Amino acid sequence: MFIHIVFLLFLLSSTSHATVQDFCVADLKGADTPAGYPCKPPANVTSDDFVYTGLAEAANVTNIINAAVTPAFVAQFPGLNGLELSAARLDLGPSGVIPLHTHPGANELLIVLQGHILAGFISSGNIVYQKVLKKGELMVFPQGLLHFQIAVGKRKALAFPVFSSANPGLQILDFALFASNFSTPLVTQTTFLDPDLVKKLKGVLGGSG
Amino acid sequence: MFIHIVFLLFLLSSTSHATVQDFCVADLKGADTPAGYPCKPPANVTSDDFVYTGLAEAANVTNIINAAVTPAFVAQFPGLNGLELSAARLDLGPSGVIPLHTHPGANELLIVLQGHILAGFISSGNIVYQKVLKKGELMVFPQGLLHFQIAVGKRKALAFPVFSSANPGLQILDFALFASNFSTPLVTQTTFLDPDLVKKLKGVLGGSG
Amino acid sequence: MFIHIVFLLFLLSSTSHATVQDFCVADLKGADTPAGYPCKPPANVTSDDFVYTGLAEAANVTNIINAAVTPAFVAQFPGLNGLELSAARLDLGPSGVIPLHTHPGANELLIVLQGHILAGFISSGNIVYQKVLKKGELMVFPQGLLHFQIAVGKRKALAFPVFSSANPGLQILDFALFASNFSTPLVTQTTFLDPDLVKKLKGVLGGSG
Amino acid sequence: MFIHIVFLLFLLSSTSHATVQDFCVADLKGADTPAGYPCKPPANVTSDDFVYTGLAEAANVTNIINAAVTPAFVAQFPGLNGLELSAARLDLGPSGVIPLHTHPGANELLIVLQGHILAGFISSGNIVYQKVLKKGELMVFPQGLLHFQIAVGKRKALAFPVFSSANPGLQILDFALFASNFSTPLVTQTTFLDPDLVKKLKGVLGGSG
Amino acid sequence: MFIHIVFLLFLLSSTSHATVQDFCVADLKGADTPAGYPCKPPANVTSDDFVYTGLAEAANVTNIINAAVTPAFVAQFPGLNGLELSAARLDLGPSGVIPLHTHPGANELLIVLQGHILAGFISSGNIVYQKVLKKGELMVFPQGLLHFQIAVGKRKALAFPVFSSANPGLQILDFALFASNFSTPLVTQTTFLDPDLVKKLKGVLGGSG
Amino acid sequence: MFIHIVFLLFLLSSTSHATVQDFCVADLKGADTPAGYPCKPPANVTSDDFVYTGLAEAANVTNIINAAVTPAFVAQFPGLNGLELSAARLDLGPSGVIPLHTHPGANELLIVLQGHILAGFISSGNIVYQKVLKKGELMVFPQGLLHFQIAVGKRKALAFPVFSSANPGLQILDFALFASNFSTPLVTQTTFLDPDLVKKLKGVLGGSG
Repeated sequence: MFIHIVFLLFLLSSTSHATVQDFCVADLKGADTPAGYPCKPPANVTSDDFVYTGLAEAANVTNIINAAVTPAFVAQFPGLNGLELSAARLDLGPSGVIPLHTHPGANELLIVLQGHILAGFISSGNIVYQKVLKKGELMVFPQGLLHFQIAVGKRKALAFPVFSSANPGLQILDFALFASNFSTPLVTQTTFLDPDLVKKLKGVLGGSG
Repeated sequence: MFIHIVFLLFLLSSTSHATVQDFCVADLKGADTPAGYPCKPPANVTSDDFVYTGLAEAANVTNIINAAVTPAFVAQFPGLNGLELSAARLDLGPSGVIPLHTHPGANELLIVLQGHILAGFISSGNIVYQKVLKKGELMVFPQGLLHFQIAVGKRKALAFPVFSSANPGLQILDFALFASNFSTPLVTQTTFLDPDLVKKLKGVLGGSG
Repeated sequence: MFIHIVFLLFLLSSTSHATVQDFCVADLKGADTPAGYPCKPPANVTSDDFVYTGLAEAANVTNIINAAVTPAFVAQFPGLNGLELSAARLDLGPSGVIPLHTHPGANELLIVLQGHILAGFISSGNIVYQKVLKKGELMVFPQGLLHFQIAVGKRKALAFPVFSSANPGLQILDFALFASNFSTPLVTQTTFLDPDLVKKLKGVLGGSG
Repeated sequence: MFIHIVFLLFLLSSTSHATVQDFCVADLKGADTPAGYPCKPPANVTSDDFVYTGLAEAANVTNIINAAVTPAFVAQFPGLNGLELSAARLDLGPSGVIPLHTHPGANELLIVLQGHILAGFISSGNIVYQKVLKKGELMVFPQGLLHFQIAVGKRKALAFPVFSSANPGLQILDFALFASNFSTPLVTQTTFLDPDLVKKLKGVLGGSG
Repeated sequence: MFIHIVFLLFLLSSTSHATVQDFCVADLKGADTPAGYPCKPPANVTSDDFVYTGLAEAANVTNIINAAVTPAFVAQFPGLNGLELSAARLDLGPSGVIPLHTHPGANELLIVLQGHILAGFISSGNIVYQKVLKKGELMVFPQGLLHFQIAVGKRKALAFPVFSSANPGLQILDFALFASNFSTPLVTQTTFLDPDLVKKLKGVLGGSG
Repeated sequence: MFIHIVFLLFLLSSTSHATVQDFCVADLKGADTPAGYPCKPPANVTSDDFVYTGLAEAANVTNIINAAVTPAFVAQFPGLNGLELSAARLDLGPSGVIPLHTHPGANELLIVLQGHILAGFISSGNIVYQKVLKKGELMVFPQGLLHFQIAVGKRKALAFPVFSSANPGLQILDFALFASNFSTPLVTQTTFLDPDLVKKLKGVLGGSG
């Protein structure tokens, strides 16, 4: 029955090899575009391009927030290029805090793996939606809205947020205000915070201007 | 030459009337969907559905920020439904300020029409891009990033921002923090602001929790 | 400084409440559309709409494949509607297998949480990309391509796949061929499998035709 | 080997039945949305929903243009809803002409099946790209640009254009100008055509105003 | 409280600098792609990249249509690349006319800033939707449909149209027909206009063929 | 009336030439991106770039399946780049079969031109939707689902499938399983097919591993 099927092999698959773009592993040395990076030549692609091991180890959380964010965006994991997905790892020590932040370019789905995490976001209508999440529970944060995660109780916590873009972005509110070159008079005018407070925080976080 | 062309009229256009959706004016009484509102029946659509006059008049700016934002989003201007565009009107008195805010769902292009406006945004990399804009000048603010506008000098100012969505959203930082039900301990934990300051601002702006 | 800012509150936020669609929690009783379900009225939305607890417990894997898939798609987790994200839980007993399958509507990013999982996909060019993944490692599977996961070693395994759509779909190859109403002659003609084998598998899996 | 696989059947496929939206056959009685019509309940969908026979017969071309266009858009073929594809049938008698027209909502790929067709489009840069196409040849027309098809020689011709939308739209230039309620003074002002000519063509094609 | 927060600075923001693409200012020397131009290296981007001053001055309208269109598309304003927005400036002298035209790649929202403008579009169903717009009023024109703007009364007029694409395109009907290389016999066949008229208009507008 | 209109020509069209991207003919020597290939310089584009003649001739079907697929995807027809459309030609001898396959990246609309074709697809819910199609009839296959075409009766058949992407992909089930480097133990584990059968088919189709 299959004696001559080898003819088929040449007929169909010879063309399909050249024409199909199933994936577009990023060539990070090429210039980015609005749709992502140019593709690595398919012939050079290996299984390793689709695998990322950089989130396997816990990050050091011996810092003021008792927490760390480790990204697996397209810049770290080029196989995500064009696939509208990415991930990160959140390590939180006891009472660790991921401060208020937004992802300008993606929705987020948080998967809690260890500990208890109080997570929440603030809507455009100024309503806070928040919940304490346990192991195996999920919470979704719509794109561009301020949100936070806090380890509750005395245990450390672990979560993997995933994103609807290979390049979700990350704007941390305190850094935008106090670790940037946003001048103190402008911060004051656009937030109504006290100039002395702004200067103090900029001193700590390294802001200028 | 055109004697029998009337036949064509029936042949072609009789079908095209029923089948074409050039536009989808929102029926705001219908349930919204992720792609927008259901369409008003085409037979009920008139020229007025594509026109909006609600931005023609200057808004009252006798308030603490000497400024006002008047939106022409899909909820005000149903003809925008599904068209990936909307607008607003910014009125700024002398030294008027539009405080730090984001549009979670759209990029913004600001068209300055009167006065001098200092406008800027903060990138994910914590760099401020800002410029004083004069009449007829444009500035673009990428989606989801914190930005602001301030009237400079002693003159009032006017600008029309336009957006890449019929429903761009608007999250005002001070309102998210201090006019919401975001509890003082959580604001403090996720921003490092002083609890006394947070309570004071919540008192003024009406926040609870 | 903030004495009169309450004016601002009314000026800006009164309009923003009505106009902003930050999210569109599915009303599953409404008719689906190509972009997702109609939105639940925002006034009825609570924090619980953004949280899903149905993946917290391990599924029963006492079946022939020693494995189970538990979905958290929009039908289970309505808060995902329109957000281009979803998740599932893979429980694998020792040597458990998730048979060859595709997701017609989404890319997949697999996060391995326990055990060792051999995962792989087959490209249009008939190349298999596969790898043994350990705890905390990620692998991405481009949309629509056949892929599989197998627990290797004598330990059970756990993974959370996430998807670039709230409704990724799931076509399991064996079910499509042998648990459907796909007639034996047609299966045979379109796969070159032996009719006796097809009949036997249909008997086991419940296929008809 | 497959003795207990029936367990798997219940485990996996019971959930997948309810959750998967592979398609969204239009319920044309429901209100349209920017993304298409609401879906017919999946349980009522049959094979016939995915098939359209309305292009099988040649249309009558005994009219002034010796030609006819028969659409298979979503309004005729509800199975196309949400699938970003549609088709039409062009019948051209000898020297038949499909007059200048645009599809505001889709790119077009023309497949010539019989006869010789001179087809072309005009770019924004005012360059005409045109070619005589024979049986089995294809030509692509980018979205929104004026284009035409003419049967050349003494033979009739047949072609199937396909579109990158289920609802591509069709604006025929002569009808827009002379079969609409576009007033003669406005046609004249916006096209520089002579008022007498405009009135004459409106008389023939049925325009008003 | 913030003594050690400097640790956080290194922990989080060192990675975020490299990985985030908030914007993609066009490198116009690079090859365009279907999604836009490649990005200028982020380190070379300055505030000026997000600002465009080329629409600030009125254009000369001493021409036959008493009008001028000045574009701020991605080719003029590279900061718009990938942001799905652009703008233009319409200057109209008394009775100035922007002739019938389409934007093949974008919806348009017109903002009238001075004078009275009669604006309208023709639907696929051959219905004209038109209105006289005053200062501060908006009108929306769906993608790909013929539309026009005319200054009414004895005053000059000014408007800023904005578009839902950084590259909306512009096909002016008279130019497509009479300023292109579209041959007179083909214009005649596909529009039913008189050959003598076509030749005359081509003579004036510079068409060939 | 048109004496001075030549002024207009310079005013408007001089800018529009440079700025408009109506199309993006692929430069196949450039690196692909997630949105397609870089564009050939517009000045080098000719009518031939929009035309493809490679589907005009019947393919040889003297092979085991009595059938052949000839693609006109972007790799063969660069003018399709970015236009979300492509096509192919199916030649089927008497009883010819296009075996079960998927297009991971596109929906398909099949246009039958000759003979009788039994076509069908299998949904995620394991339901087969199938029909015998005659000349001029259409059937649509949603993205990523297994489907097939078979010439019924003693006549040969011809069809043109079209796709909602310039790069739809093609995964043929038998090739994925038996013509790839998918190892026999893994095929067996993930499909429940018998190892002897798998080895036999791999021998015929050239699979390894």
